Amino acid sequence: MSTAPDDAVRAYVEAHRAAFLDDLVAWLRIPSVSADPGRAGDVRRSAEWLVEKLAATGFPTAEVWETAGAPAVFAEWPSSDPDAPTVLVYGHHDVQPATLEDGWHSDPFEPQTRDGKLYARGAADDKGQVLFHTLGVRAHLAATGRSAPAVHLKLLIEGEEESGSPNFPELIKARADRLGCDAVVVSDTGMWSRDTPTVCTGMRGLADCQIDLYGPEQDIHSGSFGGAVPNPAMEAARLAAALHDADLRVAIPGFYDGVLELTERERQLFAELPFDEAEWLRTAHSRATSGETGYTTLERIWARPTAEVNGIGGGYQGPGGKTIVPASAQVKLSFRLVEGQDAEEIQQAVREWVAQRLPAGIRHEITFWGATRPCLTPLDHPALQSVVRAMERAFGQPVRFTREGGSGPAADLRDVLGAPVLFLGISVPSDGWHAPNEKVELDLLMKGVESAAYLWGDLAETWRVPVTR
Amino acid sequence: MSTAPDDAVRAYVEAHRAAFLDDLVAWLRIPSVSADPGRAGDVRRSAEWLVEKLAATGFPTAEVWETAGAPAVFAEWPSSDPDAPTVLVYGHHDVQPATLEDGWHSDPFEPQTRDGKLYARGAADDKGQVLFHTLGVRAHLAATGRSAPAVHLKLLIEGEEESGSPNFPELIKARADRLGCDAVVVSDTGMWSRDTPTVCTGMRGLADCQIDLYGPEQDIHSGSFGGAVPNPAMEAARLAAALHDADLRVAIPGFYDGVLELTERERQLFAELPFDEAEWLRTAHSRATSGETGYTTLERIWARPTAEVNGIGGGYQGPGGKTIVPASAQVKLSFRLVEGQDAEEIQQAVREWVAQRLPAGIRHEITFWGATRPCLTPLDHPALQSVVRAMERAFGQPVRFTREGGSGPAADLRDVLGAPVLFLGISVPSDGWHAPNEKVELDLLMKGVESAAYLWGDLAETWRVPVTR
Repeated sequence: MSTAPDDAVRAYVEAHRAAFLDDLVAWLRIPSVSADPGRAGDVRRSAEWLVEKLAATGFPTAEVWETAGAPAVFAEWPSSDPDAPTVLVYGHHDVQPATLEDGWHSDPFEPQTRDGKLYARGAADDKGQVLFHTLGVRAHLAATGRSAPAVHLKLLIEGEEESGSPNFPELIKARADRLGCDAVVVSDTGMWSRDTPTVCTGMRGLADCQIDLYGPEQDIHSGSFGGAVPNPAMEAARLAAALHDADLRVAIPGFYDGVLELTERERQLFAELPFDEAEWLRTAHSRATSGETGYTTLERIWARPTAEVNGIGGGYQGPGGKTIVPASAQVKLSFRLVEGQDAEEIQQAVREWVAQRLPAGIRHEITFWGATRPCLTPLDHPALQSVVRAMERAFGQPVRFTREGGSGPAADLRDVLGAPVLFLGISVPSDGWHAPNEKVELDLLMKGVESAAYLWGDLAETWRVPVTR
Repeated sequence: MSTAPDDAVRAYVEAHRAAFLDDLVAWLRIPSVSADPGRAGDVRRSAEWLVEKLAATGFPTAEVWETAGAPAVFAEWPSSDPDAPTVLVYGHHDVQPATLEDGWHSDPFEPQTRDGKLYARGAADDKGQVLFHTLGVRAHLAATGRSAPAVHLKLLIEGEEESGSPNFPELIKARADRLGCDAVVVSDTGMWSRDTPTVCTGMRGLADCQIDLYGPEQDIHSGSFGGAVPNPAMEAARLAAALHDADLRVAIPGFYDGVLELTERERQLFAELPFDEAEWLRTAHSRATSGETGYTTLERIWARPTAEVNGIGGGYQGPGGKTIVPASAQVKLSFRLVEGQDAEEIQQAVREWVAQRLPAGIRHEITFWGATRPCLTPLDHPALQSVVRAMERAFGQPVRFTREGGSGPAADLRDVLGAPVLFLGISVPSDGWHAPNEKVELDLLMKGVESAAYLWGDLAETWRVPVTR
């Protein structure tokens, strides 16, 4: 039996907790802000610190991987069982910018513990959640008496996630031979709340574009010509307004083709979550909910495709009035996609829809930025069940399910490596990602350590890869 | 008979043409750019030059009128007949900015005559058209043997028209006692073309506003929240898109209440103008016409009320994409108004329409800039008939009718002074107002002199003011 006995894991974690926290504090002191060119040396120092830590943890391979930007870290620890599944843990070692002046109660790069919470930039996003895997794997080994993990364990910890992962897709394509795995475990997400531990099962995809509209060759006088020629700012508005029908469903023909609908069981599971609309609106800084008819707020943000205006602009935007018909306008749209939608087909549908709607006299260009595919792991996937069991043992209570409305490198990992993506994160919404006074709750962090300690054994024991491949 | 005999007028104009052009060139050399604070001294010099010129012409009163901005010029020459009608000529002595680098073939403030055209900033807009009144009134006197004009003649030449006349309404209200008149003659417009002399009969009014829309308190993540809260950029687009119905009629309830419809005769007169759509589109720098169903292009721009988006903005407008639901958006709208519409009622209708259309969760503010009333003089107004006769004598051919789609101080003059507004302008579309290589055609300029010379006598003879007051 490779599953670690719970008491042994807990004893090991408790015994090494202080040293683990000392390590985390040391790492958090390195201001690895990838967005700040002046911090490039710190980002590199952070990568080197982690390589050293992983080597000390016992990873036979631990190395810095260069990219065109900031360095990533790769580590590998093969199982003694050649038939064991291979798991790749994903996280990042760079952090968001932070200064005391932003409203921090203590220096963001001088970690402080107050009331069982460790305050520092990167505490939850993502250094704490990366580092729990070091103590996790050691607890797994200690409790099971192994000298190598029950799974072939790999880690890929990137250094530019907070800068939009500009070199990440290229990195994993170039290194696909060494990254090959049967499952990816992303530790860069969170849970519903302290009282409601959850596992995320997927992220939405993204296709976003800019539509430039051109009317008159120059701004023209709205008195002399207005009302008699097409106006590109008006046409930009008409395009945006036509995106949705009266039920706030996306009105582009073919948009919903292939959409994987929520099952009754998923809707029921979402509905069982203790959702408080007023609290959610506070988090959204918004005054009212609004969205596709027939779906709840959680269904809308987690499981339904959407179209959003991210920006619109055209004509005069300075103070006061200016009576012109503008020469041009633009609108930036983003489409969140769900399983079953193909980003390239959506792009084509949008292109055709735009071209058909514009009147004579309006020229247009449409530019799509990179597309991100949606990524969903079915509730009954055996590897997902292992994550659930591992967390339920750590938390001592049932684990529920969420999804993530955003889009991320998870889909890149799944698509390039051809492996399902699992999410193991213990952060809670109040942890303040990207905000002042980011923190991680130390008891939850230890639950992360425990979950990781249980996970490798459970996966190796219950998931026979050839069956699912 | 106070009407000037045509031969005598022509002989006088011919004899004084060279001196008149020397005067105009001297005035055009003064770069009276009201928009440029560094040219404030030149604008004042321009006003002083004109005062001196008007005094030399014989106006017993000629003075600079100060405003909170650039100075205006006022002059007055009473008729010897106390019962004669009083006419106020309106024009402006400031000019648009211009530099050689804009694409001028010669220095914009060193006038050059080439092929019968005088090239200089302000040649047509508006110094040439103001100055023709000086030679015009002298020709009128010379040909009729009078020592004073047949009408009580007043001139008001403002110094900030090219800067939006910010102090003009206040000026005419403050000086209404000295500006009292029976008719206003605006010499700051143009004709259809060299071959088709025309009289303008009116301008449209204007109500313009900015609508600010507020959604989330800050930009929020479109993955985490998009599709589940209202988006102010989308609502700005929906407002703009809802402005018109499928026939491109303005869809705001009450918008067309009271609109003075075109008569069959006016539509016929417009239709008789040699309108060339391709040429008009070139002037509009546009690729296609578009507008209210059931009306021609000329009817749309001259005689129909419109709604136009002058500017729209919200969310991210920089390079690339940014997946946010923006916190705010704004849209700037202008409404051109025609006789029968009340600017204040339109403002109220717009306010109510906006308030009713916005969903819960979107807060809004609406700000109207100053409103300009429409100004239309009926085709059969006796004073308008005098302008037509004066121009027909000068041009030796029938004069047709146009309107002006823009809005201007004409309505202010009409409303404050309670007098009908007539338009006497000889500029042609190719004169390049506000553009490089502005010019005036010298033969047309002399037709302006002649028209002015005939007008005062015709008005005094045929228009008995008490009848029309």
